[in-house]
Amino acid sequence: MVASVALVIGDASLETVPKQLVRHMAVIRHAKRLGKQPTEILLDRSYHHSAMVAGRLGSMWKRGRPDIVHFALQEALSTPLYLENKLSVYVYTINNKVILIGSNLRMPKSYFRFEGLMMKLFKDKIIKSQQDNRTLLELLDDVEFEHLIKNMARCSKCIGLSSGGLASTAQEVVSKYINGTARCQCTIVIGGFPKGHFSDYISNYLDNLYSIGKTKLEAHVVIARVLYECEKKMSMA
Amino acid sequence: MVASVALVIGDASLETVPKQLVRHMAVIRHAKRLGKQPTEILLDRSYHHSAMVAGRLGSMWKRGRPDIVHFALQEALSTPLYLENKLSVYVYTINNKVILIGSNLRMPKSYFRFEGLMMKLFKDKIIKSQQDNRTLLELLDDVEFEHLIKNMARCSKCIGLSSGGLASTAQEVVSKYINGTARCQCTIVIGGFPKGHFSDYISNYLDNLYSIGKTKLEAHVVIARVLYECEKKMSMA
Repeated sequence: MVASVALVIGDASLETVPKQLVRHMAVIRHAKRLGKQPTEILLDRSYHHSAMVAGRLGSMWKRGRPDIVHFALQEALSTPLYLENKLSVYVYTINNKVILIGSNLRMPKSYFRFEGLMMKLFKDKIIKSQQDNRTLLELLDDVEFEHLIKNMARCSKCIGLSSGGLASTAQEVVSKYINGTARCQCTIVIGGFPKGHFSDYISNYLDNLYSIGKTKLEAHVVIARVLYECEKKMSMA
Repeated sequence: MVASVALVIGDASLETVPKQLVRHMAVIRHAKRLGKQPTEILLDRSYHHSAMVAGRLGSMWKRGRPDIVHFALQEALSTPLYLENKLSVYVYTINNKVILIGSNLRMPKSYFRFEGLMMKLFKDKIIKSQQDNRTLLELLDDVEFEHLIKNMARCSKCIGLSSGGLASTAQEVVSKYINGTARCQCTIVIGGFPKGHFSDYISNYLDNLYSIGKTKLEAHVVIARVLYECEKKMSMA
């Protein structure tokens, strides 16, 4: 099924601890506390800041924030649009991995459970429902962003929302790109990282870039607003 | 300063482990892992479910969900309305405690940091800024809900949003109660618990109760929508 709207959480700050940091004591201690190998745990600036600095991790300001991705996903998957199968949601990580999200997924609100789920996903690449064996989450490695938007989300337009974009409002953007028909009209890309802008790699594939706030808004706030406006527009169509 | 709108997260599922559960192994183990006393840690169903069941905790279905309060607070404190001092936010817990929230508070998105902050707040009752000593958070015990809405939030009207309320929309509710003037026009109460409805105790003080979704919406979704509509209304005033 192709949903009416696709949401991509782009440059998402979600990854397991990179190899160059796995021998740092902060990582080893944290992994031990979680009962995991250092390579299995999520990079998390709250715990691994010293390791990230010592290891001189590239693009450090954008990395190690799984909490941001957790909030963004929670926001998207709590909307009536998603619950009614009118929204497809993808996570495109900072390392070019794609997380496919099945329909009717109840993403855990507890960070402890979310973290467990993501560690399992990065390890096993797929998570299936224990009840009916359908795929809940799937992780694909090395996916071109172009492939994601053209062959997976399959919308005719792809726009980005970022404080660096053209000044607009959620309502204006939605009325321009969403008309409420069944086939996907628009992929909306929102940054899943704490600071900075989309990578040039993602920016190249955006038809347009808009800013929907007078001030900088956090990813989950942008998601809440734009999906709410989509819902209003689509219920009128 | 009295803000234009007050938000109360009511019957909030946030408390430290009740005395009758502190000897349960699940609680002792979890406290040890956090390096705290069992009485100091937050009741959390993800970890303490077995203790809650064994201890036959009253109103169990509404308790032990600090993650819900975390999401709800994050949603409210990320809005331009709060950041521009036009919104005051209160948490009214299931045990009649009030959390006062200072202006310009950056609530941690990382649950680990939020949990640490809340444990400190429940212990010390007050958290001040290390930079300028102003109060960021304050916890008051045994506050009557009436005192909160009449003497603290000080709005002329107090409405609740709940799936059990009169069918409406966020836009309709806001246009009825918010007119954008400086003094507080309305206190909006939203449930900070996973299931069920407001307690009778809170319901008694609500002038009206509305449902703003065709389906049940989670607390953070309701907060995002109603505050977004307030912002739109107030920017037009």
